[in-house]
Amino acid sequence: MIVLFTDFGLTGPYVGQIHAVLAQQAPAVPVIDLFHDVPNHDIRAGAYLLPAYARGFPPGTVFVCVVDPGVGSSRPAVLLRADDHFYIGPGNGLLNMAARRARSCDWREILWRPAGLSACFHGRDLFAPVAAMIALGLEPETGPWQPDDERAWPDNLAEILYVDHFGNLISGIRAAEVPRVARIRVKDDTLAYARTFADVAPGKAFWTENSSGLLEIAVNQGRADRLLGAGVGAPLAVLV
Amino acid sequence: MIVLFTDFGLTGPYVGQIHAVLAQQAPAVPVIDLFHDVPNHDIRAGAYLLPAYARGFPPGTVFVCVVDPGVGSSRPAVLLRADDHFYIGPGNGLLNMAARRARSCDWREILWRPAGLSACFHGRDLFAPVAAMIALGLEPETGPWQPDDERAWPDNLAEILYVDHFGNLISGIRAAEVPRVARIRVKDDTLAYARTFADVAPGKAFWTENSSGLLEIAVNQGRADRLLGAGVGAPLAVLV
Amino acid sequence: MIVLFTDFGLTGPYVGQIHAVLAQQAPAVPVIDLFHDVPNHDIRAGAYLLPAYARGFPPGTVFVCVVDPGVGSSRPAVLLRADDHFYIGPGNGLLNMAARRARSCDWREILWRPAGLSACFHGRDLFAPVAAMIALGLEPETGPWQPDDERAWPDNLAEILYVDHFGNLISGIRAAEVPRVARIRVKDDTLAYARTFADVAPGKAFWTENSSGLLEIAVNQGRADRLLGAGVGAPLAVLV
Repeated sequence: MIVLFTDFGLTGPYVGQIHAVLAQQAPAVPVIDLFHDVPNHDIRAGAYLLPAYARGFPPGTVFVCVVDPGVGSSRPAVLLRADDHFYIGPGNGLLNMAARRARSCDWREILWRPAGLSACFHGRDLFAPVAAMIALGLEPETGPWQPDDERAWPDNLAEILYVDHFGNLISGIRAAEVPRVARIRVKDDTLAYARTFADVAPGKAFWTENSSGLLEIAVNQGRADRLLGAGVGAPLAVLV
Repeated sequence: MIVLFTDFGLTGPYVGQIHAVLAQQAPAVPVIDLFHDVPNHDIRAGAYLLPAYARGFPPGTVFVCVVDPGVGSSRPAVLLRADDHFYIGPGNGLLNMAARRARSCDWREILWRPAGLSACFHGRDLFAPVAAMIALGLEPETGPWQPDDERAWPDNLAEILYVDHFGNLISGIRAAEVPRVARIRVKDDTLAYARTFADVAPGKAFWTENSSGLLEIAVNQGRADRLLGAGVGAPLAVLV
Repeated sequence: MIVLFTDFGLTGPYVGQIHAVLAQQAPAVPVIDLFHDVPNHDIRAGAYLLPAYARGFPPGTVFVCVVDPGVGSSRPAVLLRADDHFYIGPGNGLLNMAARRARSCDWREILWRPAGLSACFHGRDLFAPVAAMIALGLEPETGPWQPDDERAWPDNLAEILYVDHFGNLISGIRAAEVPRVARIRVKDDTLAYARTFADVAPGKAFWTENSSGLLEIAVNQGRADRLLGAGVGAPLAVLV
């Protein structure tokens, strides 16, 4: 299985052009559009969301990950094997949390290059063909590589990283690490835990563990973004 | 064939996570994203749109239907067989019009539960695996169930339920039941019937039978939502 | 391979209904959602974008092209064979630039009609079934046809035709025909060429050849639409 995780949005030709490459180069492999809404160019948000959304995919899944404002510069293309998943993308930090969440990981720089590599669409021209190779058990040419460890990213990111279609506020905190008695402060509100929407009154905000394991702020039958006036980038405080 | 009908929107990971489950559990079955834009949490709009959009699918099609504000509460998960289609979703009224439009129907409560059911994403964890089972001819555990008949929903809903990408206003009225001489009142306008866009002058509004059999209000080369100032929830009057 | 190119947007049931037809009538053929964001009813924008985005698809690819404000009128349905690609759509000019960019082309009018053709959704009822036939090597009934040559469209269209998810401004000019020393005037700005984003300072605008061969105006780590105040329809001047 090949899985796409990008900031491309769904408009424009970009996602379709990647599908076209994969349909030709790995025709029998299912391709899943997992997430195309990483906030534009937000490497850090993508880094924290990726391992949450990658949970539960079967062994051997190949993730094509593109949040790549430096495309066409000297940033490397990399291949990460983290436990039994493969991740392909720019070596700009996007894959770092997927590596950190894994029990074992192995980084390689992708040295293989296609004929006719465009300057600004490596997702289509480089990452997708490499994903097809990996999915088919082939080995593109790679070399040794290690990520820059200077980025001192925290293990959990107490910040809103994504606002979904329903106005739910999704953070970079793994909810399993937060005691249920904790209260979460966002903007001017302090919220208690609830297991799910139906456990609070309509119109009431709460924090919960969402279906991907992240701490999420939601409102029963309402929109948390509007009720709390909070969006991407809003900091959270965990009060225990 | 498995068909998805939800209010998830296309952003976020939710649709992709459902596709991932189906790709694993029913790999040879085609999956169609039919409609992900039911107005959020609007069970009634979904109920009237579903049988219109389900028309023409082949016998044995399995519809996964999710407009589910009560997810995680005690509302049941249900399986409806209506004529030769299967519908899986919450027992909250969403499937009621699909049943009413059918010549014969059979309701069951879904008793099967997966290991690790999340509190808020039964679409992925429960409905999708059950859809895979049905599509493969397997029988998940079910029990007897009947929908609550107290909801006195009309046979046709004289209201705008959805505004499409072109600004066309789609109602819950089956157009075949409206005489072509009727006029439709919406907001401050009263509109005559036309067979299609090209039959009226550019910029002019009309009512028509859309390609799914519903009464729709449209404007030739324009947007009915803007011209008429009407949107989801606007009432219609049929003047005969 | 069947490829969809439309102005349907991704919301609503329309794209899904086309997929459902193709899944039934050409089940083994991959279907790619290439582009559903042609500005509504903008035949000319679609005409110039189509051959750019169709580049690189394998021989035999069948494109279903729908920007069709005159659906239901007497405009013909046409089949274009341009080099080794097939294009199916309305005979309203949408396919004209795909023909002009080809070394050889052959036009036919599609005479085949399905039972139950709707008045306003020929994409689903007529173009998709014909695409399935062509992809399977079958021959739908056709007759001779030639496009109206009175449209004096230029070879390159010096205008913004599309604004992508990142705010990049995509024109109808083939960038290979513009010398790299040229400067592009858009609104109040005059821009120099750069090979890619990373070659200019953050926040700076430039023109480039995009990954589909079109002249595009972009901003490193920013949005060209906002920085330059330009959108669809804005004229460009090439200053050499």
